Amino acid sequence: MKALKVGIIGFGTVGGGVYNVLQSFKDIQIVKIAVKNINKKRNIENFDETLLTDNAYEIVNNPEIDVVIEVAGGVNPTFDLLKTAIKNGKHIVTANKELLAKNGSELFRIAKENNVIILYEAAVAGGIPIIMPVKTILCANKITKIAAILNGTTNYILTKMAEKDLSYETALTQAQELGYAETDPTGDVEGFDAAYKIAILSTISFNKKVDINKIYREGITKITAQDIKSAKELGYRIKLIAMGQVLENGKIDVRVHPMLISKKHLLAKIDNATNSIMLSGKPVGDLVLTGAGAGADPTASSVVGDLLVLAAELESSDRPIPQAICNHNEIADQIDIGDTYNEYYLSINAGNNPGAIGIIGTICGKNNINISTIMQNGINEDNTAEIVVITEKSKESDVQKALEELLKSECIIKINNLLRVMN
Amino acid sequence: MKALKVGIIGFGTVGGGVYNVLQSFKDIQIVKIAVKNINKKRNIENFDETLLTDNAYEIVNNPEIDVVIEVAGGVNPTFDLLKTAIKNGKHIVTANKELLAKNGSELFRIAKENNVIILYEAAVAGGIPIIMPVKTILCANKITKIAAILNGTTNYILTKMAEKDLSYETALTQAQELGYAETDPTGDVEGFDAAYKIAILSTISFNKKVDINKIYREGITKITAQDIKSAKELGYRIKLIAMGQVLENGKIDVRVHPMLISKKHLLAKIDNATNSIMLSGKPVGDLVLTGAGAGADPTASSVVGDLLVLAAELESSDRPIPQAICNHNEIADQIDIGDTYNEYYLSINAGNNPGAIGIIGTICGKNNINISTIMQNGINEDNTAEIVVITEKSKESDVQKALEELLKSECIIKINNLLRVMN
Repeated sequence: MKALKVGIIGFGTVGGGVYNVLQSFKDIQIVKIAVKNINKKRNIENFDETLLTDNAYEIVNNPEIDVVIEVAGGVNPTFDLLKTAIKNGKHIVTANKELLAKNGSELFRIAKENNVIILYEAAVAGGIPIIMPVKTILCANKITKIAAILNGTTNYILTKMAEKDLSYETALTQAQELGYAETDPTGDVEGFDAAYKIAILSTISFNKKVDINKIYREGITKITAQDIKSAKELGYRIKLIAMGQVLENGKIDVRVHPMLISKKHLLAKIDNATNSIMLSGKPVGDLVLTGAGAGADPTASSVVGDLLVLAAELESSDRPIPQAICNHNEIADQIDIGDTYNEYYLSINAGNNPGAIGIIGTICGKNNINISTIMQNGINEDNTAEIVVITEKSKESDVQKALEELLKSECIIKINNLLRVMN
Repeated sequence: MKALKVGIIGFGTVGGGVYNVLQSFKDIQIVKIAVKNINKKRNIENFDETLLTDNAYEIVNNPEIDVVIEVAGGVNPTFDLLKTAIKNGKHIVTANKELLAKNGSELFRIAKENNVIILYEAAVAGGIPIIMPVKTILCANKITKIAAILNGTTNYILTKMAEKDLSYETALTQAQELGYAETDPTGDVEGFDAAYKIAILSTISFNKKVDINKIYREGITKITAQDIKSAKELGYRIKLIAMGQVLENGKIDVRVHPMLISKKHLLAKIDNATNSIMLSGKPVGDLVLTGAGAGADPTASSVVGDLLVLAAELESSDRPIPQAICNHNEIADQIDIGDTYNEYYLSINAGNNPGAIGIIGTICGKNNINISTIMQNGINEDNTAEIVVITEKSKESDVQKALEELLKSECIIKINNLLRVMN
């Protein structure tokens, strides 16, 4: 086997993991590594400093390099770097979910023109094998639904809130102290990271290009200790769920938001930073794939896995494997959140007034919302009542209209939270 | 794309599922289907009866056929049929776990000589993608451990025993009535089916040929309602576990037996006929893959998935994909069950005698077995006591020796059961 020559862009946690794993594969030769700061002290034994460059174009323009591994993240300058690499005939292995979600179409188009492959197992759910299985061994299936925990940070925070009755703020601070959340946690806690991943996964699963800008996205910052407690009492856990489904009318419903999940559901049992993907297809039925969704080692498993598959393919053929080229020319017709149907959890702060439950019931009824459970969760110090409502399947726009009417009613003080429910 | 021409051997539940799924793929042409009884009435719309033959050699010797799909099962005559097909240059897609576990080495050897591929995703865990992921995207890993529920029938029986406090016999009868167990259930309940599957999975995961005859195998027929109840009280579920691990000394430990699994373990939550595989590797960490392990549809997903991957490969290259050829020339050095270390659950029937627990403790201690829990489970009608012991990690041969000594002690009436424990 002729040694495959690779350049690595990005040498942070994941880049270091990839470097370490590649040491066991003598047929892969690292030619160059692009870093931000060439003078930073690196804690790697026998490391050859001459591999480093602070100019990533030295990699994408290097005629010696066969494959560019991009683990730097972000869109700028990676988008231009990868376009240049592809035009120079280099295959790409990337973990960059943001770039693929935002600019994947263009990258795959020019990859096709240039007869190169882009592999990206590590971009979704870290070490869990999902991209390649969907594109290969599951390809006889018509996949109709994905429901997944794709962000470890938020799952860690929600797990700790539930285990230790913590507020969101306290759980976030602890997650930051332990390295599970970044100093600026926005990308994780507001659901951007999960949205990038579900955009990619829905696109390959449904074979239609999903537009990241049309994905409804809601983070976990408004979840309170009281929500978690009420959910528990009703037999649910709260998780940030990335969801994609093909509706009967052919429209595609892709969104990211927190959900109450029945404690009997396998996804309710996924705790801490673990990721899990439930995928439903015909004829395979329901699959649940669970594992580490981030971290140097699991991510390196996927990056190097992609690289070894690519090496084997290039060894047997001059033409790339057909299933590894994305062909999603068809654009997904994405449904607006207002047109979706869901069961809901509604937490309402009302005056301690015997008529409150009647008013809630009346307003819900008027808006075509059937209530399946309504419970008063005790009286607050200020003599207001916490009322929790679980609805049957209702239209989101009806529910939003009901919320507006509820807020106008004088005995309703505040809508604490509105969450969707999965049984 | 040139149509791929296939012949199907076996037209039972799985064969019918494969036939149905293939109707959506116009590039795959079914040339011939071999059945046992050509006159049997088949409930398929617009079925072309001329496809049928009762002589499978008409398929393996047919020069028109590119790929033989074998879903007949068993070793005789399938072994000879597939050898003939391979020598005639045909690629193979098979779901036949027994044949691969017993005669895989020879099949893969002659496949290599004849430059054909054998794919067998459906042979292990039905629709769950495991064989191809291990051979492709996970190939950067050193896999060290597999613990799996690979037999749906036994998992269904054990689930019903636990849910409804049934005896093994009653649960088996119900499973048979519902079609979850066969009239002769031996292959499932005695662990043969799970042993074939773990032999195949361990071989590709550890890259060493595992000998099916050296796999320790114990079924579920001796599990009592009392065992399930005691396990529950101690925080465990009982599952038939197929296990494979690489020990620190390089030896390979592969076995199938029922185990008490801590209820916190993900495998403890896998109920009914569902299959689940926990795989531990470096760098990926722990993965858990869950789904339907049998049935026409899930199995067809894997068979047709293999076929489509093969079709794509043949389209891009005249040479087979390297990772799809099994190269396990190295023979696994399999450890004897007596030399393994496990935690144990021991159910003992003793005289209602104040000295019984002391005697159990003394005999265990003498045989290097530390007890972590010992509990008396009430007094039977005949004034004997049920005593349950959980041990710390101990050597199997020591435990077997202790059992012999216990049986010689006059206050011990019977050893009800000895099971291994996974936390």
